[in-house]
Amino acid sequence: MNDRFLRALRQQPVDCTPIWLMRQAGRYLPEYRALRRKAGDFLTLCKTPELASEITLQPIRRFDLDAAILFSDILTVPDAMGLGLTFNEGVGPRFDRPISSRSEIVKLPIPDPSDELRYVLDAVRQTRRELPSRLPLIGFAGSPWTLATYMVEGEGSRQFEKIKHLIYTCPKDAHQLLEKLTRAIILYLNSQIEAGVDAVMLFDTWGGTLSTETYKMFSLDYMQQIITELPRTTPSIVFTKGGGGWIKAIASIGSAAVGIDWTVDIAVARAQVGHKVSLQGNLDPAVMLTSPEIIEREARRILDAFGDGSGHVFNLGHGITPEVPPDHITTLVETVHEYSRRFHESVD
Amino acid sequence: MNDRFLRALRQQPVDCTPIWLMRQAGRYLPEYRALRRKAGDFLTLCKTPELASEITLQPIRRFDLDAAILFSDILTVPDAMGLGLTFNEGVGPRFDRPISSRSEIVKLPIPDPSDELRYVLDAVRQTRRELPSRLPLIGFAGSPWTLATYMVEGEGSRQFEKIKHLIYTCPKDAHQLLEKLTRAIILYLNSQIEAGVDAVMLFDTWGGTLSTETYKMFSLDYMQQIITELPRTTPSIVFTKGGGGWIKAIASIGSAAVGIDWTVDIAVARAQVGHKVSLQGNLDPAVMLTSPEIIEREARRILDAFGDGSGHVFNLGHGITPEVPPDHITTLVETVHEYSRRFHESVD
Repeated sequence: MNDRFLRALRQQPVDCTPIWLMRQAGRYLPEYRALRRKAGDFLTLCKTPELASEITLQPIRRFDLDAAILFSDILTVPDAMGLGLTFNEGVGPRFDRPISSRSEIVKLPIPDPSDELRYVLDAVRQTRRELPSRLPLIGFAGSPWTLATYMVEGEGSRQFEKIKHLIYTCPKDAHQLLEKLTRAIILYLNSQIEAGVDAVMLFDTWGGTLSTETYKMFSLDYMQQIITELPRTTPSIVFTKGGGGWIKAIASIGSAAVGIDWTVDIAVARAQVGHKVSLQGNLDPAVMLTSPEIIEREARRILDAFGDGSGHVFNLGHGITPEVPPDHITTLVETVHEYSRRFHESVD
Repeated sequence: MNDRFLRALRQQPVDCTPIWLMRQAGRYLPEYRALRRKAGDFLTLCKTPELASEITLQPIRRFDLDAAILFSDILTVPDAMGLGLTFNEGVGPRFDRPISSRSEIVKLPIPDPSDELRYVLDAVRQTRRELPSRLPLIGFAGSPWTLATYMVEGEGSRQFEKIKHLIYTCPKDAHQLLEKLTRAIILYLNSQIEAGVDAVMLFDTWGGTLSTETYKMFSLDYMQQIITELPRTTPSIVFTKGGGGWIKAIASIGSAAVGIDWTVDIAVARAQVGHKVSLQGNLDPAVMLTSPEIIEREARRILDAFGDGSGHVFNLGHGITPEVPPDHITTLVETVHEYSRRFHESVD
């Protein structure tokens, strides 16, 4: 049984530093691309439990990763709320019915995970059955702020002008939307845990577009409400991309670990959080496109910076990009497992 | 004579906090759009001194701003190096001949500002003559890292994969490119100063995409070299977007001021830098799209957070966006000037 990942989240001794990669189930794998060509679009893959489960397992068969993460998307929740999600090749996600008025927020339903999101729970159950040797399975959701951003902008955005207009001019409406999303996510993550995931992660992809004050009010507070409503036995990871300036605040909301992007010096982050939380990260995804030698050097640099002891889950600082050669991942995983042993001698 | 801006950069007493806005000369002004429709594309405006000067003066005629900034673009330097710059509506900048090999870096010329960039110096001289009542004029350049990013990527980028591949796999080539850009920018900014600008700003738009270590090696060190080669009598401002985690390091390279984006709490930044530098910023540009009441409230919040004393130049945390109603700027400028008087009572 491989429990390195869960032990590291609890800062318990491990034999070596565990590693998994954001977006490890996905486009850089030829077997994923083959399955996608056959089965249709991205959303069909998410909504077909056999396919989602198969894609979740693909990277686990190839690499000695310490956790699997369910193949899915953060936008399944607003889709289940009736916004009409589509993914267009090269364009990204888009909602047919974005939120543009107070009455739409009021009418927004809280999805019942066992109904509208049943396909996700079925994928969790199927994956849990097929996952080798009790490898942990990670479930996830987008943060309320990040989902609200997509729901109000209607698609990806550069300036986030619509959602920011909402929080500044109609903060009550914004809070109502975020409260509904918070309730939906609490139900969703608890259902994933009941279906068999061993840990959960909140992806706050757009929290880093806020000011320090609005981040606390419109993103961090809602993530804290979610963490509070999860079972204590299931560790959680909170990741705000671009949140390097707020690590101490994020570390105080009750999650087991804080994800950090590659712009942060992990030694500085560790000094800031002490033993309050574990840290997950933080290799620049661009390094994965270089060479095995450089990947090894940069991975060692991060392991050296974290230093002795448990409490580190190695990961990239953001999702893996589609052009990464799979053998580069083999190099990374081997480097992390082998080189990190020196920092965990007490367990030998 | 209005010397609030220059005095604030030197942390000398002022009657109220000075304000100017990044991209204040530009698209949100109807008179700019009219001139552009008549005169042609963006680059023609930059390269025609009478037009560049006229656009520089447009916001000064409308608003009680404390500084003018030359209408130009950071990519004039790589354009003068022969890369063939074009701006396409809705697409952004693009180079016909991006840097893709070592031999291209070796061959890259250092432009003579009085020749290839003479149009910028002519625009400075013409603006200086027409600028009312010794209002200070700001000159600027892109940081070496930011220019190198555009030159290697060839256009705007989301992942910066090519330039990052270069710094990780061929760091010597990257350093050679950055050294050439550093020499070019030193010549360029000194020529702007000789032509009459009163302060200069380095725009490091893409420094925040680097890790802490690579930021120091590939961006900050080169900006320090530039600051060192400017006359001590001309104050400088260094702005790394997304550099909130590195403010103390940026404050130590010798510039008069550090620009901060809107994600940073200016009270925290001030505590970090003490009296080492002034701070410029940092209202979220999205606030400018809301209402006069909200703009007033958010501007006061930033002035309150900075608190008593000189050393603050009010600005947005990034460039003003095209849809901002001009009367919102009137509100912002009046609020900053009036409300800030309480923090500068010693000069009354």
